[in-house]
Amino acid sequence: MNPITTNNIDQYEGKTVTLSGWLVHKRSSGKVRFLVVRDGTGIAQVTLVKAEMDEEHFERYHSLTLESSLMVTGIVKKDDRAPGGYEILASQLNILQIAEEYPIAEKEHGVGFLLDHRHLWLRSSKQHAVLRVRHTVIQTARRFFDDRGFILLDAPIMTPVACEGTTTLFETDYFEEQKAYLSQSGQLYMEAGAMAFRKVYCCGPTFRAEKSKTRRHLTEFWMIEPEVAFAGLPDIMELAESLIVTIVKEVLSSNREDLRTLERDVSKLEMIESPFESISYDRAVRILRNEGVPFERGNDFGGGDETLISDQFEKPVFIHRYPASSKPFYMKNDPEKSSVVLCMDLLAPEGYGEIIGGSAREEDVELLSQKLSNAGLSPEAFSWYLDLRKYGSVPHAGFGMGIERTVAWICGIPHVRETIPFPRLLQRLYP
Amino acid sequence: MNPITTNNIDQYEGKTVTLSGWLVHKRSSGKVRFLVVRDGTGIAQVTLVKAEMDEEHFERYHSLTLESSLMVTGIVKKDDRAPGGYEILASQLNILQIAEEYPIAEKEHGVGFLLDHRHLWLRSSKQHAVLRVRHTVIQTARRFFDDRGFILLDAPIMTPVACEGTTTLFETDYFEEQKAYLSQSGQLYMEAGAMAFRKVYCCGPTFRAEKSKTRRHLTEFWMIEPEVAFAGLPDIMELAESLIVTIVKEVLSSNREDLRTLERDVSKLEMIESPFESISYDRAVRILRNEGVPFERGNDFGGGDETLISDQFEKPVFIHRYPASSKPFYMKNDPEKSSVVLCMDLLAPEGYGEIIGGSAREEDVELLSQKLSNAGLSPEAFSWYLDLRKYGSVPHAGFGMGIERTVAWICGIPHVRETIPFPRLLQRLYP
Repeated sequence: MNPITTNNIDQYEGKTVTLSGWLVHKRSSGKVRFLVVRDGTGIAQVTLVKAEMDEEHFERYHSLTLESSLMVTGIVKKDDRAPGGYEILASQLNILQIAEEYPIAEKEHGVGFLLDHRHLWLRSSKQHAVLRVRHTVIQTARRFFDDRGFILLDAPIMTPVACEGTTTLFETDYFEEQKAYLSQSGQLYMEAGAMAFRKVYCCGPTFRAEKSKTRRHLTEFWMIEPEVAFAGLPDIMELAESLIVTIVKEVLSSNREDLRTLERDVSKLEMIESPFESISYDRAVRILRNEGVPFERGNDFGGGDETLISDQFEKPVFIHRYPASSKPFYMKNDPEKSSVVLCMDLLAPEGYGEIIGGSAREEDVELLSQKLSNAGLSPEAFSWYLDLRKYGSVPHAGFGMGIERTVAWICGIPHVRETIPFPRLLQRLYP
Repeated sequence: MNPITTNNIDQYEGKTVTLSGWLVHKRSSGKVRFLVVRDGTGIAQVTLVKAEMDEEHFERYHSLTLESSLMVTGIVKKDDRAPGGYEILASQLNILQIAEEYPIAEKEHGVGFLLDHRHLWLRSSKQHAVLRVRHTVIQTARRFFDDRGFILLDAPIMTPVACEGTTTLFETDYFEEQKAYLSQSGQLYMEAGAMAFRKVYCCGPTFRAEKSKTRRHLTEFWMIEPEVAFAGLPDIMELAESLIVTIVKEVLSSNREDLRTLERDVSKLEMIESPFESISYDRAVRILRNEGVPFERGNDFGGGDETLISDQFEKPVFIHRYPASSKPFYMKNDPEKSSVVLCMDLLAPEGYGEIIGGSAREEDVELLSQKLSNAGLSPEAFSWYLDLRKYGSVPHAGFGMGIERTVAWICGIPHVRETIPFPRLLQRLYP
């Protein structure tokens, strides 16, 4: 693998190198011709001077089309005017392949067209920036848990039963007459893991067959889900806050250039420090009513509600203790007020909605069986899950962080569809 | 979260602590009683001395059953005879929950029974060891690529077409009248990524609906798949070798205790150093024939064949340049011998079979279209993939490493089913 790339070109100043990449742009001013070349790690300017190279190589300039692949040999020179800060004064220009007319021109394209060409759209600088931030977010989140002694315990994707309702499940035949459902969350499995390893996490794709076409929904998205034995709601709120602060700091440090490409207002990220505010569901309802929303107590918040609430805060804000009726069966009721559950959602600022949701889990086998029945679920199907309460039940709690929503917020882009390499949406399964 | 755990108990010597966990074992010798407690991170001995504690607490000993959850307060003392090397001289013993009769006794159970109770089996020391090694393998592999400038680019799970054949695909309805297939490999998407970012990798679950019941097959397993632009077969062989050496070294350093639990012969791992041997398919066939196997040239190797070949070597061995007819359409033919493709499989030692498979990819659009047609696949379905050859095609290569087979080999356990938290097998979708 050729060791020289545009992101380490500064180490080769004054040396003769061979750079390989793709043409982004070209222009000519007679005897001097310029190529802007991207190599996947950044861009560099290549300068072709007629007197400095074979005419055959110099004339290859003409056949180069946008995104053609090439190799250029020449001397690296520092040039502050050049895109990337360096230029290569070429002695040879070799063409690998002349690209057909590139479909993504510099003009504006509709997002449908761009998504149809996602395999090519990935080459653009904005998509590079977003996906590099995504890489940092996932890497940092994993390391956060690794560094704290959590064991990675991948949850299964194909599962025999639904975790949260059955209407939004993708289903597949599993050999003879069995059905498998694509996982919506690894949580239940992480609870088994927490009873074995104390602190565990999973990070993988999850699936929701929701017919919603909002800017916050993908049918396939990634979650990281820690689960902790001998922990309660305050513990996981502290953990979630620390995770978000750590991720934002790391992106600010590792992805400055990407945030600049995205024209992100970094001052909004620089203020993401502990502590976050934490409000009860009841107070969130009052906020909505003060804003004139006729919100009915007992419901869960919609996307618009979340935006109105988070607009009251500059940092992410926790909402805790939702009505039990609005939340799944596995959440533990507040011993001090049994109509609410010991749960929390973390809303990102700037209207990005819920990025984390978690709770303490019901640990009493009788109460849990009752809650399963109340939710219309069969205790038989969950017998292994009930086992966790029969054999050494302990208080435990956990949460899930949605990777793509977190990336969308940090990048400041309005729709989650650009925050995953190949988005899957209601009407989008290609490429 | 309680900061003291058995894996940091040495920092609390002489101090009064509260340890929370589950009962593994108990025994009594009159006025002194012993508990062995696991807390998810390890084990510690708890000593109950009648004179040192309330009688009520002392007598709670009797009600404790295997896997009951408890909290014990006492002074940490070093004791080399104690399992874990420390004991807690208890002043208080509080029971959280008395476990029902624990199904997994110390006697031998059949593997079917253990898999039915996988959610509990995870608590055993051997399963701990295996899954901790798995964590190290995945973490090290990810960091290996992160450190080398690869961008993490998660491949989609739900895909519109099959990558390698259609008979072994799980299928799901994707909203109105569409079908989605669960991914068997992220490779094709990584190729798009390599054209955008130069060096990319994905790490995620992959699916094969194979009706095979071998010790090397799961229907759901994890792969890490790097793809590199401007790279050829020798480059990715070097990369694969370096990856395996790095992983083995890290496990030897981080998981010594786990390898001891597994009674792994670490001398076999300690010899895993560069360089690995590399043999052609032709030489592999000769090895088989010398062993008396009537192997038919042109076929792919079966599990038994792989074992016979790898038994000739102490380290992992590459087999390169298989007949084109035995390999998928996307592999590049050897320009020096067009009947073979520029591919490699890496066989683990000790009969663990293929752990890595990779190749240079066909970069010419005409040849690739031809290969698609020859494979009975429709070029239309792969039009986005063909685009990668129309718009700046470059030489590129990549491979996939199967996580679970690698873990099985490093742990020295015969069946992959124990190398993933919740295995999915032909007749196993529960829990």
